[in-house]
Amino acid sequence: MVMTGEDRVTHTEASDFDLASYLKDKKQLVEAALDQSLPIIRPEKIYEAMRYSLLAGGKRLRPILCLTTCELMGGTVEMSLPTACALEMIHTMSLIHDDLPAMDDDDYRRGKLTNHKVYGEDIAILAGDALLSYAFEYVATQTRNVDLANLMNVIARLGRTVGAAGLVGGQVLDLESEGKLDVTVDTLKFIHIHKTGALLETSVVSGAILAGAKQEDVERLSRYAQNIGLAFQIIDDILDVTASTEELGKTAGKDQRDKKATYPSLWGLEESQKQAQALIDDAIAQVDPYGQSAQPLKAIAQFIVARKN
Amino acid sequence: MVMTGEDRVTHTEASDFDLASYLKDKKQLVEAALDQSLPIIRPEKIYEAMRYSLLAGGKRLRPILCLTTCELMGGTVEMSLPTACALEMIHTMSLIHDDLPAMDDDDYRRGKLTNHKVYGEDIAILAGDALLSYAFEYVATQTRNVDLANLMNVIARLGRTVGAAGLVGGQVLDLESEGKLDVTVDTLKFIHIHKTGALLETSVVSGAILAGAKQEDVERLSRYAQNIGLAFQIIDDILDVTASTEELGKTAGKDQRDKKATYPSLWGLEESQKQAQALIDDAIAQVDPYGQSAQPLKAIAQFIVARKN
Repeated sequence: MVMTGEDRVTHTEASDFDLASYLKDKKQLVEAALDQSLPIIRPEKIYEAMRYSLLAGGKRLRPILCLTTCELMGGTVEMSLPTACALEMIHTMSLIHDDLPAMDDDDYRRGKLTNHKVYGEDIAILAGDALLSYAFEYVATQTRNVDLANLMNVIARLGRTVGAAGLVGGQVLDLESEGKLDVTVDTLKFIHIHKTGALLETSVVSGAILAGAKQEDVERLSRYAQNIGLAFQIIDDILDVTASTEELGKTAGKDQRDKKATYPSLWGLEESQKQAQALIDDAIAQVDPYGQSAQPLKAIAQFIVARKN
Repeated sequence: MVMTGEDRVTHTEASDFDLASYLKDKKQLVEAALDQSLPIIRPEKIYEAMRYSLLAGGKRLRPILCLTTCELMGGTVEMSLPTACALEMIHTMSLIHDDLPAMDDDDYRRGKLTNHKVYGEDIAILAGDALLSYAFEYVATQTRNVDLANLMNVIARLGRTVGAAGLVGGQVLDLESEGKLDVTVDTLKFIHIHKTGALLETSVVSGAILAGAKQEDVERLSRYAQNIGLAFQIIDDILDVTASTEELGKTAGKDQRDKKATYPSLWGLEESQKQAQALIDDAIAQVDPYGQSAQPLKAIAQFIVARKN
């Protein structure tokens, strides 16, 4: 099956499930909630900067995964939508800070100028801080009908996912590895498990926890998420080599320019694609016991390995 | 009553209450908990950077206020210590980011080189992010014996305090006002209520909420906190003019150098001191109904207006 970007995702072989409509519906739901989550008040500039990056598009994959697993485990949209939004606030914050001149120094993101290019470095740093803290406030104040112990568990996981044990830890090792010629596959995996994998895993698992899922289901979904997370990163590395800046909406060929260790640079393109497919196969096997209800998760897994941006 | 810094705080007139020992004991408790809260693991550099600023000393006024009001409302140290630590993590994060070259561009803080001068801008930004997210993880995972609805309320307030409605919002207006000659007292108050006041208020109020305080008590303590918060800032502005860099542990005379609007620049030194004292008097009146148990809060209020650094 060949797919050419999220707008033209076709039916999966196994069923009539229409992933494109599924993603489109859920994305609309998330976009509307994100839009409403942040009214502009004094001081206007910071709210505008936060909204600029939060509403800049993107696949909204993390919030969609959260909504999907909550539903899979018998929960409602009402239960998971605030956490879904918080996941996107956190993701956006990490992109704003990663793009800063002191970090990856990038000018474009999601096809638009990066936050600091529009609002300045000071406001970009503060917009990230504000999105991060607002994510926690939003989950704590907006979530309805969820057992408070489960909600506390989700808040703890969100915190852990951003910090030195997650995104930040991955970014630190990533910065340290830049330009080094002796980066091992193990280090590369550590970076990606923290930098990309942790937030994807929390997205998948938090939806289930909000719905009151059993430990066994949480573990199964964790493994699903770890697999698609790593596959997602391998495909990202592949696309950096094979896709254009226009297709990506961000600067292509950047890894090579920055002499970054990537899976294609360590394994070659073909082997990287093979490894990604194996991870996706295992992910799909994890959710197979849920039968028809797992169709969205299966299709999302296949979409990740087949995506073109 | 004249006091010459926290090591020589004398007994208050009204009682035998020994504020110096009280602050010393509570500070030791907080320092030990902070030290234990952050073990160093891979990647070591980020944990070292976080610890460098988190354990750099300071008065630990915010965590102490949280411990104090929790006790005042019948709660225990066990209930409030994690939130007390989180308040200091958040405060530290805001200092690290405020000191960055893109913001206030400061080289010294608490008598030591600022985080980015030691670890670089990239790590300093990430250390702030990690401390902020860890604050939420820490409260959510370490708090014991607190009603979960109350704990959720505290988490929501922590989030609000950092974001655009709190610290970040104040810092944005502060940056915008720099160098402007027409800053009004109203704008100055907006800045300080957000930048300094919000976190002090959350420190005072969160301890009470954790202990299960009634709404009436929370409101009384809010007003106490708002008053000491504004007084704290006025005194900060005064000290910037009257104290030396050595006494302050940070660069003195900075407001004048940066052409910042301050209370002394708008009101003069004498009137500023008078206004600060009036705020402290009102703060003390708020907690007077609690009798002897309010001695620490009263003494802390007096200490704020009399401090020399």
